[in-house]
Amino acid sequence: MLVVKKFGGTSVANKERIFNVARRCIDEYKKGNDVVVVLSAMGDTTDDLIEMAKDINPNPPKREMDMLMVTGEQVSVSLMVMAMASLGVPAVSLNAFQVQMHTTKVYGNARLKKIDTERIQTELDNKKIVVVTGFQGVNKYDDATTLGRGGSDTTAVALAAALKADICEIYTDVEGVYTADPRVVKNARKLKEISYDEMLNMATLGAQVLHNRSVEMAKKYGVQLVVRSSLNEAEGTVVKEVAKVEKRVISGVAADKTPSRISLIGLQDTPGIAFKIFNVLAKKNISVDFILQSVGRDGTKDISFTVDENNLQSTLDALNEYKETFTAERIEHEENVAKVSAVGSGMMTDPNITVKIFEALFNEGINVKMISTSEIRITVLIDEKDVDKATKAIHDAFELED
Amino acid sequence: MLVVKKFGGTSVANKERIFNVARRCIDEYKKGNDVVVVLSAMGDTTDDLIEMAKDINPNPPKREMDMLMVTGEQVSVSLMVMAMASLGVPAVSLNAFQVQMHTTKVYGNARLKKIDTERIQTELDNKKIVVVTGFQGVNKYDDATTLGRGGSDTTAVALAAALKADICEIYTDVEGVYTADPRVVKNARKLKEISYDEMLNMATLGAQVLHNRSVEMAKKYGVQLVVRSSLNEAEGTVVKEVAKVEKRVISGVAADKTPSRISLIGLQDTPGIAFKIFNVLAKKNISVDFILQSVGRDGTKDISFTVDENNLQSTLDALNEYKETFTAERIEHEENVAKVSAVGSGMMTDPNITVKIFEALFNEGINVKMISTSEIRITVLIDEKDVDKATKAIHDAFELED
Repeated sequence: MLVVKKFGGTSVANKERIFNVARRCIDEYKKGNDVVVVLSAMGDTTDDLIEMAKDINPNPPKREMDMLMVTGEQVSVSLMVMAMASLGVPAVSLNAFQVQMHTTKVYGNARLKKIDTERIQTELDNKKIVVVTGFQGVNKYDDATTLGRGGSDTTAVALAAALKADICEIYTDVEGVYTADPRVVKNARKLKEISYDEMLNMATLGAQVLHNRSVEMAKKYGVQLVVRSSLNEAEGTVVKEVAKVEKRVISGVAADKTPSRISLIGLQDTPGIAFKIFNVLAKKNISVDFILQSVGRDGTKDISFTVDENNLQSTLDALNEYKETFTAERIEHEENVAKVSAVGSGMMTDPNITVKIFEALFNEGINVKMISTSEIRITVLIDEKDVDKATKAIHDAFELED
Repeated sequence: MLVVKKFGGTSVANKERIFNVARRCIDEYKKGNDVVVVLSAMGDTTDDLIEMAKDINPNPPKREMDMLMVTGEQVSVSLMVMAMASLGVPAVSLNAFQVQMHTTKVYGNARLKKIDTERIQTELDNKKIVVVTGFQGVNKYDDATTLGRGGSDTTAVALAAALKADICEIYTDVEGVYTADPRVVKNARKLKEISYDEMLNMATLGAQVLHNRSVEMAKKYGVQLVVRSSLNEAEGTVVKEVAKVEKRVISGVAADKTPSRISLIGLQDTPGIAFKIFNVLAKKNISVDFILQSVGRDGTKDISFTVDENNLQSTLDALNEYKETFTAERIEHEENVAKVSAVGSGMMTDPNITVKIFEALFNEGINVKMISTSEIRITVLIDEKDVDKATKAIHDAFELED
């Protein structure tokens, strides 16, 4: 069996944790399995490197930023192999240049295109544990790139797909995927299984267990994922195509406090306006979400959407630059908003679900600013201060603790 | 004109020094020259990385050690480009994988075999300052290697040779090559020029301005070197094939406190013994120096040589393992010894030189343990405690301050 295991930065933050991970991987290896390990940079390394860079140049070239960042994972993987060697097990570290992890050319937010498997396969054939740098790749210019947030998860899933691994285990500091954030909802329950689509909605909507790109990729290539704890042997949550039905309409409640809302008010009701707006943002590589268009006064229309709060200023700058092209009377924004979503495969077959959610929010006196739905998800935009209350209210309304 | 500039770890140890180096390189660039910069890891980075590794595994695999170490220079080069960018000058950083700096396969002490120039040339053609990681390479297994002590000097000279650079400037914390260590001999004088062979003898013998490998390579490929200060604009010392004659028989006095002496006593006087001994050490990759063979008692012979003190224990282990094969009665060693050398092109044409050196040492009451000479060098092995006294005595005897 070929197993890909991914450990994040906190799991390799110090000597003890590095040895903890080394031992877990060796246990797998000693069962006779082929083991590929994907690691992030140790603890605060990435933040420290960013700080060093910003001290030199507040607006560093993105290419150089990636050249700097990729050293973090290279330190992790070499130290991990040293730990494995001291435990008597042969292992080898590989960076993105050595594996040849081909990505798109965008620095800071590249996407994996193709992973060569030859080098890894050779090392596995030589009975070595192969320890690979997560989060990074090489673009067509032969320059180092990084994959953006959650990049190491994506590396792990992509490697599992390329190597046709039997399973891809994502180790994290929680025991699996819960019906809601256990820090907020005390009686939140760990799920044994969840489907890719449900997980994808949970991930996109702020349940920070898995990054959405990694779930998308797992779905596309049919990689069976397991989310489990790096701190204990608990079984975790399996993410796969069809999750066992557990007689539930919704699987969980996810919250995301990062969005900011932007509204363009008083747009002319002519074709092409929405295209112009989102084309400008796409060119600046700004992801938008939760797009709503509504009828405004006097034959005009309004367009609202959310962006990550880190992109708020650059989004406003870009929009103001083209304000007149867009025919916008004014551009508004709101920072302290949050998304709460109920996710579940069986959702849309039952018209009572939506009602139940709004009832729960109404009972708590929570004002809903925007609403968005998909086949398996209902999301509301509310004040950030109401997030925990809303999460608990929805969790209780559907008795997810059972 | 194409200029290669090399800066060591202390020259890039913090933000201010990074900007200092960036400005010097930009000055050169603004003269219309092509500029390639070679950097070492910042300040104590290399030591910190070694410490991290040893904490995980006191005897880490050498391949992984190199994988870890090479991150140090990658941090330097990316930060340097960020500094240059903030000063408005286009630059690009490249690591050994990107340049394709081919080395032999030995981890920790690889030798450069061939440097591809295509990528660097392309970047220079695009009018960028090219900032390259020193000290590192890639071997035939596509694994990271390091070049050992003084490796960044070697990288700079090899790049200068491969790119047919007009000059290769080695920036250091001294102003050039002196007739003796200015910290020891107060009236030591800076040389304007020195020949490769003289420099080679000075370097090999402990004048730590330039590493011998880099001088050997400069001589082989006719690369004109300049040793100068990173702290001021002083002119430095030019190292080239034929140095201007300055009516001097010796150019300088060099000292080296790192050697330890080993003696194999009572060897049978049969052919092949020396071969056996040095073959064992060569296989362990231990460099020896200062080899002397003398007639012992009762038809036996003794062989003495020096090794770097860091290799003393491994040398003794290797020798003791084969002690009987060597027919050695016993193996002696002495740690607190040092080499002092007088170097000069005109030396051997004047028989009075040797006499003058021994006279100077005798007047100071310094005991000479071993003597070795070449065409342009006389070296004595003495007690480590006498090194400074011996250096001054020889410097004074030849009036090198004039």
